[in-house]
Formats: sequence, C-alpha cells, structure tokens
Amino acid sequence: MTEILANFAAGRWQTGTGPGAVLTDPVLGTELVRVDSTGLDLAEAFAFARDQAGPALRAMTYRERAALLGAVVKVLQTHRDAYYDIATANAGTVKNDSAVDIDGGIFTLGQYARWGDALGDVRALRDGDATKLGKEPVFLSQHLQVPARGVALFINAFNFPAWGLWEKAAPALLSGVPVIVKPATATAWLTQRMVKDVVDAGVLPAGALSVIAGSSAGLMDQLQPFDVVSFTGSAETAGVIRSHPAVAHRSVRANIEADSLNSALLLPDATPGSDAFNLLVREVVREMTVKSGQKCTAIRRILVHSAVYGAAAEAIAAKLASVTVGNPRNEGVRMGSLVSQAQLRAVREGITSLSTHTEVLHDGRNQPLVDADPRVAACIGPVLLGARDADQAHVVHELEVFGPVATLVSYRDMDHALALAQRGQGSLVTSLYGADDVALAQAAVQVAASHGRVHVITPDVAQTHTGHGNVMPMSQHGGPGRAGGGAELGGLRALDFYHQRSAVQASPAVLAALGL
Amino acid sequence: MTEILANFAAGRWQTGTGPGAVLTDPVLGTELVRVDSTGLDLAEAFAFARDQAGPALRAMTYRERAALLGAVVKVLQTHRDAYYDIATANAGTVKNDSAVDIDGGIFTLGQYARWGDALGDVRALRDGDATKLGKEPVFLSQHLQVPARGVALFINAFNFPAWGLWEKAAPALLSGVPVIVKPATATAWLTQRMVKDVVDAGVLPAGALSVIAGSSAGLMDQLQPFDVVSFTGSAETAGVIRSHPAVAHRSVRANIEADSLNSALLLPDATPGSDAFNLLVREVVREMTVKSGQKCTAIRRILVHSAVYGAAAEAIAAKLASVTVGNPRNEGVRMGSLVSQAQLRAVREGITSLSTHTEVLHDGRNQPLVDADPRVAACIGPVLLGARDADQAHVVHELEVFGPVATLVSYRDMDHALALAQRGQGSLVTSLYGADDVALAQAAVQVAASHGRVHVITPDVAQTHTGHGNVMPMSQHGGPGRAGGGAELGGLRALDFYHQRSAVQASPAVLAALGL
Repeated sequence: MTEILANFAAGRWQTGTGPGAVLTDPVLGTELVRVDSTGLDLAEAFAFARDQAGPALRAMTYRERAALLGAVVKVLQTHRDAYYDIATANAGTVKNDSAVDIDGGIFTLGQYARWGDALGDVRALRDGDATKLGKEPVFLSQHLQVPARGVALFINAFNFPAWGLWEKAAPALLSGVPVIVKPATATAWLTQRMVKDVVDAGVLPAGALSVIAGSSAGLMDQLQPFDVVSFTGSAETAGVIRSHPAVAHRSVRANIEADSLNSALLLPDATPGSDAFNLLVREVVREMTVKSGQKCTAIRRILVHSAVYGAAAEAIAAKLASVTVGNPRNEGVRMGSLVSQAQLRAVREGITSLSTHTEVLHDGRNQPLVDADPRVAACIGPVLLGARDADQAHVVHELEVFGPVATLVSYRDMDHALALAQRGQGSLVTSLYGADDVALAQAAVQVAASHGRVHVITPDVAQTHTGHGNVMPMSQHGGPGRAGGGAELGGLRALDFYHQRSAVQASPAVLAALGL
Repeated sequence: MTEILANFAAGRWQTGTGPGAVLTDPVLGTELVRVDSTGLDLAEAFAFARDQAGPALRAMTYRERAALLGAVVKVLQTHRDAYYDIATANAGTVKNDSAVDIDGGIFTLGQYARWGDALGDVRALRDGDATKLGKEPVFLSQHLQVPARGVALFINAFNFPAWGLWEKAAPALLSGVPVIVKPATATAWLTQRMVKDVVDAGVLPAGALSVIAGSSAGLMDQLQPFDVVSFTGSAETAGVIRSHPAVAHRSVRANIEADSLNSALLLPDATPGSDAFNLLVREVVREMTVKSGQKCTAIRRILVHSAVYGAAAEAIAAKLASVTVGNPRNEGVRMGSLVSQAQLRAVREGITSLSTHTEVLHDGRNQPLVDADPRVAACIGPVLLGARDADQAHVVHELEVFGPVATLVSYRDMDHALALAQRGQGSLVTSLYGADDVALAQAAVQVAASHGRVHVITPDVAQTHTGHGNVMPMSQHGGPGRAGGGAELGGLRALDFYHQRSAVQASPAVLAALGL
C-alpha cells in the first residue's frame, strides 16, 4: 500500500482513518500516494484557525504579514526540485508546464510580499478619502477596509495544485485571514507537500495554513458569518456551494471560478500572413498545448473572418502537427498527459459532442505517443475543430472541453464577432489581434462587459506581451456569468474579498485618531 | 371596489387580471387601492428592458445619464405633496417620518446626479491606474469598469417605498442599467405613483424604469447572466433568492440587505448627565420612534456599562413617556402607526419573545392613542426592555423586532461591550458615544469588522452629526453576516454593482486609444 498523506488541521498533522483515495501517475498508471480525511474533527480545525491563527495574524501589521509571505517564498524555493518531481509524476506535465503552476505560484506570492510591504505598519486600510456629510467639514465619512474575522476555505481545482493555492493564499494571509485548503484529490500531493514544507519551516503562526485532502464533505457546514469560501471548479459544484446554507443564509462570501469559453478574436482587416494573423496562430497553438489545454483561461474559440477561415485552419493545423505528445520525462516531448484517465475520457466525449456541429481540422486523437503506452497513458494530441456556421454551432459556445481542443469559428463582420464572443455568456479572458490601435481599443471596451480580462496583442508587443492564458497577479482573474462571477488577484484589489468595508462617520479629530 | 394600480412593463401600462391584493390605511383600517400582476408577460417585460432600454441608456454618457437623474428629481419635486398624502394614508407616518422616505429619496437622486455629472462624457470608467506587466512599460494592465449589459431587479421592503427605490435606481440608471422594481405589496402605492409620474413625464428612455406590483412569483426566473438583483427584506427570503438557479447557477449578482441588530455603545467613562450620556439618550429615543422604529438601521441594542444601566434606563424611559402616538394627521402626534395589523402582531409577539430574557423598563404597549381607535389602528407606543445579564439574554442578539422597541444591555468592560456588539453576527450600523477621540477611534476600528457603518457621536458634533439611523448616500449602506453582506451607496462605490470590472492588457498606444 502507498503512503497516506497527512492532513494539517487544528495545528497538528492528522492522518485519516479510512482507506484513502489513490493518486496515480497519469502517464505510467502507477499508484503514488493516497489522501484521506476520514475522522477529522472539522469543527475543531475551523475553530482553531478562526480563534487561534486569526487573532495572531491580525495582531500583525500588513508589512509584518508581507514578510511572512516573503518567508514562504524562501521555503518554497528551497524545495523547488521536489515540486517539479511531484508535478511530473502526478500531473504528467513537461517542465515548462509544471513551471506555470509552481513558479507561477511563487512569483505571485513574491508580488504580494512586495505590495504588502508598501502598505506599511498599519492594521486597517483607508478606502478612499474622507467626505464631508454636510456643508461644513465638521462631520465626515471615512471608509475603511478592516480584515475579516474569519477563515478562508479554498476548494481548489486539479489543474493548479501550486498556483491555485498561492494565488488565493497570498492575499488572504496578507489580509490576516487564516487559510484552509482542500485540494482536488487527483493532484492533492503537490498542495499537501508545499503546505508541509511551510509548516515544517515554522514561518507562519500556528493554524494560519491548514490542508485537508480527501473528501470535501462537511467542510461548507463549518462556515460561519465572516468566513469566506473561494471555489475553482465546475459550474455544477459552484451551484451547490452557492445554495449551501452557509452562503445562502449566513451570508458567507463565495468567490467562484467556473467554466469559461474563452475566445481569441482576429480583427477583420488582418490578412493571412500579416503580423496579427501570425501572432494569433502562435498564441492559439501555445494555449491549446500548454498544460495540455487544462487551463481555465485557455483559448476554446478562435474567431476569424470568413475570408481567412481556410488560411487560419491551415496555419494552425500545420503547427499543431509538429507537437510531440507523450512521457514528460522524455526531452523530445512538448506536451505531456492529461491529469487522469477520467479526464481523458471526458475530453474524448467532449470532442465527440463538439463534432456534431463542427468539422475536424486537425485530429491528434490517435497520434503516436513518445515514450508512453497509449493503453495506459492519459495522453491525447491536439484537436482543432471548425465551425463555418457559428450561429448554428451552439454547443461550441456552451461546452468547455478541458483539454488540447479548440474550435475555429467564422464570423461575418465585427458586430457578429463581438456577439459570438459574448455568446460564451461570460468568460475569463478574450484576446484581440490586430494592428489598428483604435479599432482594438473600441473592441476591448465592447467585450469587457462579458470578460474579466481582455488581452490585446499587437505587432509591437509580440515579444513582450504576457500571454493570453497567463494570469498575471497585477490583473483581475475572474469573469461574469458562466465564468462564475468571481474576482481574484488584480493587485491589491484581491484584498477586498478578505476585508470588510465600513464607513466611519465622525468628527475630523476622531478620524485623525484612527492613525491611518 | 377600489382601483387596481397598473403595472408599467414592456414600455406600457398593464393591469393585472386577478382580483388584486388590497392596500389599507393602517390607522383608519380603510381600503385604499389594490395591486395585481396576474397575467403579465414577464419574459417580455424583462426582454424589453434588457434589449430596448439597456442599449439606449448605454449609448449615453455618464454625464447624460446624470442629467436624466436630475430630470427625475424635478418630476418628483412637482408631485411631492401627493407623495406625502399617500404616505400618510398607506404607511401611517407623520410628516417628519414621511420626509425620511420621500425627501431622502429625492436627496439621494440629486447627489448621484451631481456625482454622475462629474464623471463626464465617457461610456466606461477607469479603475485605478495602468500597471506595467514587465520590467519595461511596454505592455500594461488597465482595469476598466464597464456598464453591465443586463437589467436590475429590485425586490424592495415595505418601510421605504420611495427611498428604497431611488437609492438603488440612482446608481443603476447612472450606470446605464434599466430598473424593474417590485415594491412590497403593503406600501406599493407610493412606489407605483412615483414611477407613474416619471414615466408620464417622459424623461427616461422607454423601459428604463418598470414597476411590477403584486406577486413576486416568476420574477427571479427571468434573470440571466449580466442581470443583477437587489433585495431588501427578511433573511429567510434572502436565502430563497440566493438559492435560486439565477444566482446559484447563472452567477446573477445578488445584493442583500436583511436583518440587523444594530447597537449603540456608550463608552465606559461616560457618567450619567455627561454630554455623551445625554447624546446617547437623545439618539436612542429618536431611533426608537422615527418611522415607529421601522428602519433597518434603527438602534435595537443599547450597550452601557453596568454602572450607568439604571441611570440610562431612567433617562430613556422618561423621554419615551412623552412620546404621543396615534393618527398622523393630528398635529399633536409624534409617532404614527406601524405599516399594518400584521406588522403590529409581529411586533407584539417579538416583544413577548424578548421579554423571556429581559425586564420591561418602559411599556408603551397599552398607552392611549391620540385620535385613533386602538381596535383598528396599527399603533403601539415605544417599549424599552433591559438585560442586566447580557450574555444569557441571547434572544436580544438574535431577534430583530421591527418596531419602536429596543433593549438596554449592561456590559462589564470595553472588551465585553465590543463582543456584545459583534454578537449581532454582522449589522448595518453601530454608534459610539464618548468624549475621548482616541478611545472612540480604537473602538471604531474594532467594530468595523462586523458593521457596514460606524457612527461616532462626540459632544462637538452634537448639532452637526447626521444621525445613527440616517443613511447618507456618501457612506456605504450594508453590513456583513446576518445583515446580508450587501453594499449600497457609498458615493460612486455603488456603481460597482452595476458594472463589470475588466483588466485590459495592451500596449500604451492601445490604452491611450481607449479615450478614458
């Protein structure tokens, strides 16, 4: 039997009493470790974080808590090689793809450490300036942001066991809110190992960071007013979380990142072979293949004018044909595996569903694998589909296939293109490609209403832009509607979720005594 | 049979086909009008607002929409006398109490007209400054706020048929979002009349403002991604709204104002007869009696040091004894009626529930009414209860009795007082009374975590402070936890709810072309 990973809850390591769920190597099919949370006293775990770690964190200033994040960065850097080994074994990702998760998480932590340091030695934040409440400035309103007096529960997705933890934990801990993370079972190992390293290093107050791997049953029941929950995963589970009494009746704040049918839009004036056209092709291929397309921000729909549909199909397919797929340990492999056989089945089924309304432009489904057994490995080559009749192909705008799969969609004119982008019913990100700054700016404002982020790629930023699917901590991550309505990151904006805003109405003398 | 008020939906007046619900005069017991929405095509109503009024509003700039608000103010001012007549007849409020609702609403609209004008002739707003995404400033992130492309549904409470509409509609319309208001049936007349006057005046684009009075059945079913819902009312109904598929599954944003056990806290060093003590007494009596205590911001718990409990009880009771109650048409009456017999029963039952853990310090339950029949009028005099053992009296911290009722609560020391304030589990507002600026500022930061607003009353602002329960549009209205987790007003902060935030990542040239 493989090792059962311990949970860290109520300030101590606790092993579940059940048989545990098995984590496997999706390329080799071997068993790696198990996770289990059977028998844990969840009430004790949440109370410990809320009542022990919360006051300890809130007794510190923002600058002091920023220093904690800096210390966490150092711990994680020390063990970086181990994280890459776990990612290779448990997620089947090549080194470049593991980096998106591991180094992306460390980078985000480092950013919040820097931003938090600049907040200084205070324990609450001013929100805007004081406003007078009458004609004379003798009685004023000053909004504050004060740390929430609860815990933050993270229910995370399988595709980012490292970044998914730290992009949420960085603003939470900086805000003085203890974190309890429940990683997705399939890839829980990396999350658990990172928490273990941080706990073992003793750099955080007791209970500031807990990990409970295994079942999520009962976790939501523990939430009380002033706690928050942040969920990344399916729209279906998001609905269950929003309907839970903690959220529906106790006003526990919920931040949700769910499905997203992100698009890439080539502006109509871009001809085949133009810089903008080539930039689109490059970005689409990158987005389809990085982490085998298992990114919530990946491009799922490629919107091009009907006049360039054929040329775009050809150019993207040609590049996809050179993508090698297989064992991530082999240096010749560009794209590793999906996270599990279950995920592989879901992707194959998704492609079949999409195929009812699309043509197949490049089919990597049965391409030979490098250094991997196709009967065992959860590998699949990239698949490019095409929809010449974009309006009829409604499944393309509704079904997110979480793998190396995208659909080329033909549009008539710019209004049609914008309407198609919006048919995602709310997405995390769209990217625009062109050379006309004014047309791009106008399109950006148009699509902003239904997208949390708009990434504009012009020839002058070909070498410097940060990537359609890459989530930079400076920018908001989260989109409306189908994407869940969440908002993470965006620099210090992320702190809002972990703070309570309050308007203090008082005399100038009392406001001065706030010391902020 | 009394008149059935028409609904304004899909750009035309439509009368329900059912018998209607009767609105009554709570003092005289007479029937006034009826409301009914049976047979309305709700899908048509929402689609008309979303597809006709939305684009028309969004085609305007903020300055142009601010001018619309200014025009609405003028219309309402023209018909002001009629609104006071309706309030007297349907809500049973004295003139001063009607003013809180009617003039409070007009004042709030006027503020947003002024603030909106200052936003200028743009159609989207910058959110912070551009941030570079690499070492060189060649690729930047600029957050925007763009108007939500949906409708705003308001499900409102009975106690503010005027202000409750306009404090929400002002930021919604300024943001370019059409409004559909469903007023509480008991006092729907004033809301309907105000909408009618505005519609008849033709100052808004067709469908920008709709009113559907009667049943709320089916309204939530109409909501789609990008729509928003704002609810004011009971925690129970709030739970139903949050669990509705529109919110739980389609990520429709919900803003909730629910129950709130607001407190007033006299700092421990204030002795009987001191300025701070007297200010507390005055404010408590005002809060208990204005609108017969039917304000979600009213003081429900009065926290005083055990040493001054007796003196506070005596001073508050003495002032309450002089409050005249009865027919609001009689100039000698200070406090009119509750909104209905049903509300009167709920308040009497609530007092009985509170009495199990409290003593009665002043009992206005059976005081003689002025110019009103006690068998008919929904009138009740003020009731002051007292809890010497604050910790045991848990019902005091859990049950909101929505009438002229408050409980004096004794505390041991400042920590105990702050813990008791927090036992409301999240409230809209607390007020602090004292003369020590530093102690008050420290207490304000402490209670801010569980209160949306902290109102500090010192002797130097005795004449200029804006009142514990008075909601100023400059300050946020809404509290965490039991209070619903909502956030309204707060100046331009209110616009956030009606906007989508999006990060545009682009070259400096593209960002410059945004024209913002």
